[in-house]
Amino acid sequence: MVVELVTTGSELLLGQIINTNSAYMAEGLNKIGFDVIYQTTVGDNRERMREAIMHALTRADIVITSGGLGPTQGDITKEVCAAIFGRSLRLDEDCVQRLKDYFARLHREMAENNLRQAMIPEGAHIFVNHAGTAPGIAIGQEGKLLVNLPGPPTEMKDMFERSLKPFLEKKYGFSAVIISRVLNTFGIGESSLEMQIQDLILAQSNPTLALLVRPSGVIIRITAKAKTREEAQGLIADMEQEIRARVGTYIYAVDDADMENVVGAGLKEKGLTIACAESCTGGLLTSRLTDVPGSSAYVSGSVVSYTDEVKADVLGVNREVLAARGAVSDEVARQMAEGVRSRIRTDVGVGITGIAGPDGGSADKPVGLVYIAVSGDRGTESTKNIFTGTRKQVKYQTTQTALDMVRCYLKKI
Amino acid sequence: MVVELVTTGSELLLGQIINTNSAYMAEGLNKIGFDVIYQTTVGDNRERMREAIMHALTRADIVITSGGLGPTQGDITKEVCAAIFGRSLRLDEDCVQRLKDYFARLHREMAENNLRQAMIPEGAHIFVNHAGTAPGIAIGQEGKLLVNLPGPPTEMKDMFERSLKPFLEKKYGFSAVIISRVLNTFGIGESSLEMQIQDLILAQSNPTLALLVRPSGVIIRITAKAKTREEAQGLIADMEQEIRARVGTYIYAVDDADMENVVGAGLKEKGLTIACAESCTGGLLTSRLTDVPGSSAYVSGSVVSYTDEVKADVLGVNREVLAARGAVSDEVARQMAEGVRSRIRTDVGVGITGIAGPDGGSADKPVGLVYIAVSGDRGTESTKNIFTGTRKQVKYQTTQTALDMVRCYLKKI
Repeated sequence: MVVELVTTGSELLLGQIINTNSAYMAEGLNKIGFDVIYQTTVGDNRERMREAIMHALTRADIVITSGGLGPTQGDITKEVCAAIFGRSLRLDEDCVQRLKDYFARLHREMAENNLRQAMIPEGAHIFVNHAGTAPGIAIGQEGKLLVNLPGPPTEMKDMFERSLKPFLEKKYGFSAVIISRVLNTFGIGESSLEMQIQDLILAQSNPTLALLVRPSGVIIRITAKAKTREEAQGLIADMEQEIRARVGTYIYAVDDADMENVVGAGLKEKGLTIACAESCTGGLLTSRLTDVPGSSAYVSGSVVSYTDEVKADVLGVNREVLAARGAVSDEVARQMAEGVRSRIRTDVGVGITGIAGPDGGSADKPVGLVYIAVSGDRGTESTKNIFTGTRKQVKYQTTQTALDMVRCYLKKI
Repeated sequence: MVVELVTTGSELLLGQIINTNSAYMAEGLNKIGFDVIYQTTVGDNRERMREAIMHALTRADIVITSGGLGPTQGDITKEVCAAIFGRSLRLDEDCVQRLKDYFARLHREMAENNLRQAMIPEGAHIFVNHAGTAPGIAIGQEGKLLVNLPGPPTEMKDMFERSLKPFLEKKYGFSAVIISRVLNTFGIGESSLEMQIQDLILAQSNPTLALLVRPSGVIIRITAKAKTREEAQGLIADMEQEIRARVGTYIYAVDDADMENVVGAGLKEKGLTIACAESCTGGLLTSRLTDVPGSSAYVSGSVVSYTDEVKADVLGVNREVLAARGAVSDEVARQMAEGVRSRIRTDVGVGITGIAGPDGGSADKPVGLVYIAVSGDRGTESTKNIFTGTRKQVKYQTTQTALDMVRCYLKKI
């Protein structure tokens, strides 16, 4: 079945908001075997919306709109669609009751215009909105299906998952299952990675392989299509095994897991605690570590030492070393890691010192130069790094590298 | 002039990437008086792309594509467009030279297929790509204009600003100038804000007003359309004055400025330094403060105290208070602010203690409860807050509130 998505709303046309609904719906539909071949965006203009939806119906079996189901006069999607199929709108008593219940729950008065949301095209299937007030609609006619979903992403997503997907499955059956698995790598560039698995990329058919560069590192997306979920998972597992045999050391996580989740799980598993001494990252490393629920089990604390005084006073970095080598040096990073570990009494200490830019660089110490040290029972390790990009990008890359160093440290003990 | 945007690429159709190009182009075109009335997305399929662009040409004066100008066989946008206007492609020697120069600069070999990017439709205007290899194209015929821009956002944006806008101005003149100004508020909800300026919203025509809820707070967007930039700015200034008279105390910045920029500028102006003692925010507040270039002038350092031991040992919080009141209490927040200020010897100290969740809440201390204190020469102030949302949302809202407290503190001294 061929699908066209029609997103409506003047904010989209004016570029005031970014259209995330189309990507969400397209990805979800592709995963259950529907082909999305066109996406159209049109404003809250009756004539143009009608033209766009009529044209969509000429080239797709299923047209799914999103937006324009609100209570105001500018919300016209449902009316335009009903008119295309020659249906009149009628007040639906169940919908009225759900609206009344919704406002009663919130202890709010229901405005008269909310009743517009209970006006339903004759013969339409209704999708209950569990995340807002506007019901969704599906009208089938002459082999075509026209679906109206709400515009706010939380409402659209809830209705898409809870109602539309089961509705489509019942009506058409899912012709295929498409599953993706993402292997997150760190420490290897796109072209090096490509060279290591070039034969797999060239020979790909099902599953397919894609390399994508993300701020966190290069990701490998494996996508398989099959009749059943189990069959697709089997295809992916075989490919993953082959890839891991080549570049497994660079793969730190799969799917949505971030480096901080992986490091957190490693610390928890080994029963270790961690503290960080951060200069140029300004607290971002500890903030990422503490983004993980339950991280208080292993994060004890940290010190952001933006000045030499704090490095010396709080962390105990040697003043002579600071003077001789400068704050941005390997020795200072190591002493920061050791100092914070001893000051906060943790098993692992991390020290970071560098120049995030855009100012503060020099010929021998350029912007992007960062020293990172990890200290533990087995001694202290450090790296010298040169990162590029904006201040925020340098900060982020530094934390990603530091987390990976901790990850590798944990694997060895 | 009426514009249709056609974005191409299978990643868009599959929902693997979110279409940010359409919003960028639509906003930019609207600001110079062009009406974007449709946006279409189509995959790298010759027949469907042809159909979409042909249809776009029937309903728009100007069709702007983005994507499909790369060197591979899958990049077909230029060929499809040239065929629609009956133009053949010819190797352009200037383009070849620029490609050679580009690869020479990067010390990289130019692959043979890169020459496809130097194939230009007869009679086309060429936009030089300063951010990549694919040149842009503009072909005018029978009163219609067809423009091809590259797909990677950095290349598209650079070409859009540097080449397309001047080209459109020369060809059509700008019929109007549309300017927006955003007033960023904090500490007032959407409905309260709406009530304070309801008459202005109801009476709006030019400039228009829009309230939008963002994680940072509610923003008020004022948009004016006029013949000249000066005239539009005048319309905005009058409206801004009227709004500031009503809700000025909640407005902390305009346009892209973040709260950390405002606080940073305030500290710098007054020559003051700051340190933070962070518990539930885990370093995020200091990370935001140090996102601002030049922040080393006023950020001295911080302590993330995730355990009671660090709160007592490093920050000097009274152990009896910790035991009696608990770590999440007003007294502890105040002692953290005072402790970090004295420990790191700064003018201002901030203390934060709370429960970010999702676990760790109780009946009298629920998830989202956060105490924030700001300490300085004039004493210590504190607030009790209940935030909602995910762990990351609680962390962010806490830092936004803490920064606003510092901003208000600075205004008083």
